[in-house]
Amino acid sequence: MDTRETSGPGTVAPDLGPATALRCRECGARCALGPRFACPECFGPLEVDYTFTKVTRASIEAGPSNIWRYRQLLPVPDGVTATRNTEPGWTRLVRADNLARELGMRELWIKDDSGNPTHSFKDRVVAVALAAARELGFTVLACPSTGNLANAVAAAAARAGIRSVVLIPADLEQPKIVCTAVYGGLLLAVRGTYDDINRLATEIADDEDWAFVNVNVRPYYAEGSKTLGYEIAEQLGWQLPEQVVVPVASGSQLTKVDKAFGELGDLGLVDPRPYRVFGAQATGCAPVATAFKDGRDAIRPVRPATIAKSLAIGNPADGPYVLDVCRRTGGGVEDVSDDEIRDAITLLGRTEGIFAETAGGVTLASLRKLLDEGRLDPAARTVIINSGDGLKTLDAVSSVVGPTAEIPATLEGFRSALPS
Amino acid sequence: MDTRETSGPGTVAPDLGPATALRCRECGARCALGPRFACPECFGPLEVDYTFTKVTRASIEAGPSNIWRYRQLLPVPDGVTATRNTEPGWTRLVRADNLARELGMRELWIKDDSGNPTHSFKDRVVAVALAAARELGFTVLACPSTGNLANAVAAAAARAGIRSVVLIPADLEQPKIVCTAVYGGLLLAVRGTYDDINRLATEIADDEDWAFVNVNVRPYYAEGSKTLGYEIAEQLGWQLPEQVVVPVASGSQLTKVDKAFGELGDLGLVDPRPYRVFGAQATGCAPVATAFKDGRDAIRPVRPATIAKSLAIGNPADGPYVLDVCRRTGGGVEDVSDDEIRDAITLLGRTEGIFAETAGGVTLASLRKLLDEGRLDPAARTVIINSGDGLKTLDAVSSVVGPTAEIPATLEGFRSALPS
Repeated sequence: MDTRETSGPGTVAPDLGPATALRCRECGARCALGPRFACPECFGPLEVDYTFTKVTRASIEAGPSNIWRYRQLLPVPDGVTATRNTEPGWTRLVRADNLARELGMRELWIKDDSGNPTHSFKDRVVAVALAAARELGFTVLACPSTGNLANAVAAAAARAGIRSVVLIPADLEQPKIVCTAVYGGLLLAVRGTYDDINRLATEIADDEDWAFVNVNVRPYYAEGSKTLGYEIAEQLGWQLPEQVVVPVASGSQLTKVDKAFGELGDLGLVDPRPYRVFGAQATGCAPVATAFKDGRDAIRPVRPATIAKSLAIGNPADGPYVLDVCRRTGGGVEDVSDDEIRDAITLLGRTEGIFAETAGGVTLASLRKLLDEGRLDPAARTVIINSGDGLKTLDAVSSVVGPTAEIPATLEGFRSALPS
Repeated sequence: MDTRETSGPGTVAPDLGPATALRCRECGARCALGPRFACPECFGPLEVDYTFTKVTRASIEAGPSNIWRYRQLLPVPDGVTATRNTEPGWTRLVRADNLARELGMRELWIKDDSGNPTHSFKDRVVAVALAAARELGFTVLACPSTGNLANAVAAAAARAGIRSVVLIPADLEQPKIVCTAVYGGLLLAVRGTYDDINRLATEIADDEDWAFVNVNVRPYYAEGSKTLGYEIAEQLGWQLPEQVVVPVASGSQLTKVDKAFGELGDLGLVDPRPYRVFGAQATGCAPVATAFKDGRDAIRPVRPATIAKSLAIGNPADGPYVLDVCRRTGGGVEDVSDDEIRDAITLLGRTEGIFAETAGGVTLASLRKLLDEGRLDPAARTVIINSGDGLKTLDAVSSVVGPTAEIPATLEGFRSALPS
């Protein structure tokens, strides 16, 4: 069944590559590709359905050094490589032997997404949202955000030569405003809580023909996180890891990494061996970890209070699906304190020379806790995701790092400061 | 003549790949590879000399996606790829059509080095310094620095599992301290001016068996900038650009890009067509631009006063060689005001979605001025280098960018803020 139809604000049927329809994750109903995020039958969340053509390792390897090497697996037209975009992805997978030694592990890898154009994994999802939004006829890219997403949307729109509209809280810190304002576009400081801003964004999305990346084009946007999973497997020499630890905000990234691993197995691109998926949250915003530990299926919303602001979603949309994935694969969901997050950031810095955002600290601290509890196998090949850059969350660690000593500008002063 | 000998603190002859000797840039005298930076005959600066073996495009293209694809052209052992290092380089070369249109140019490219592991080109030079330092028997990596270099040295040492010693001014701003302190290592806050700190570093280098990247292993360190030139040519499809604009601090980066272009031509890897090299300085620290404009050969030192702190070297060591290159190739050296730098940063942000450090702003602003003055051909293929990341110099633009409007969290408030 080809369910494509004329949809979106444009009048031309969208070319979204291998994507064939949207499918409800709850009731399974299918509907046409378009700017929709809720099932017309049951209001459940919609996900992209595909009919993949023959994809080979060689065809992927011959592609560009960015996420578009996987364009045959994404809801984007084949010609996406010729469009102006930020070309994110193909970030480093770093073998972390120093860190593994400290943790007593055999083989640990860090997928370091701080190397993306605006230094977080959001460049991946925004690039896919932009490509789909163009096909759906949109000419404005929008989002509500307090950080990484705002940076990524404003930069991607600037590069594409289209307009961006970004809604931020009016009381956001000045450095975070500068990072987004520098890309131009409409930047609106909204007086209200982040919940107020999200509500306003949904109202505007109903009112204007704009692509709100995480609202009306969310099903396409979310698919961008699959590329993290594809890259991990390809960079491991077309093998799945045995264990992966993924930070959980909305929970979308974790479910899409799992989806990617599954697709690679189904397509014969990797040997479909079992793997275990672990989620990582901050204790100050741990609705999914709490549900996992309590053995519940329902997520009880919380009011976030943590230094890991990029993970501070109190009512995560994909929480139930995270529980499904972690339970099905024999993984788990852990949460860690702000002090454990800070410790993990400095541990990663001094062992591997990687400066992670707080979200990366959450992931490493959760890995450590899972090891201590004996729930993660130290001998199994393990990958953790660092989804952002420490330069964006300097305040989080400024209280715990600093100069070793202060000295006068003399050789004597210097010698007295050397550890004996 | 093989001038290699046992040298450095170790007792094993260093394997520095194709490097055969150090050669004085002033008197031409050659001396053995070792931790030296001044000619034993005339105290002139030393440079690495090579005997290249057969290098082909195919052998380079088969290499890793980092600077080590060019290891046959660098003073490093062939086995460098198996060592733990930050693997910098192979950053994006972005075709900047939006920006070119605004500037009235035909073909403009941005070499965006903010994509390096610690987000500046310093990762390149430090990686080469580290590889050479290891071969020379050093086990400590050190530097005096106020910014990008400190980040790069501390991260590289952490990743390599060796000790770092970084000297910073005691009055450095807290965010800049955090970026380096997070990587561990010895971080010494020195009470004194940057000149005092540099002098202390030279004294320590005489006293301790440490590799000060920009002092006693400087000849190797500096070669790392050649990789910018190699990558630009390879990413243009093995062609040299017709014009290139490079920021000038010590001047080393510019001279090494020129050296790289020359080597590629000599080795038959590119068609050796003429190209023009332009240097870019901030007016608040423009000793090279001033000498160029005055037609002088000597550089008159200045006291820096500019927002472009990463370029603020008042007495640039390679200044005379920059003049040579720019005059020989028919290029030039330009300087721009702090306001022009800020304008250029926001211009690049809104046209291409790239957030440049102040040094990148200097380069783009200089390009603009050279175009306005008719000294740079708008129809010729041009590359400019963005050597660092705007996240590190947020303060420089915080006064000129901000929210478009502040609104209440209502549809009415939102509508009233839209441009009509």
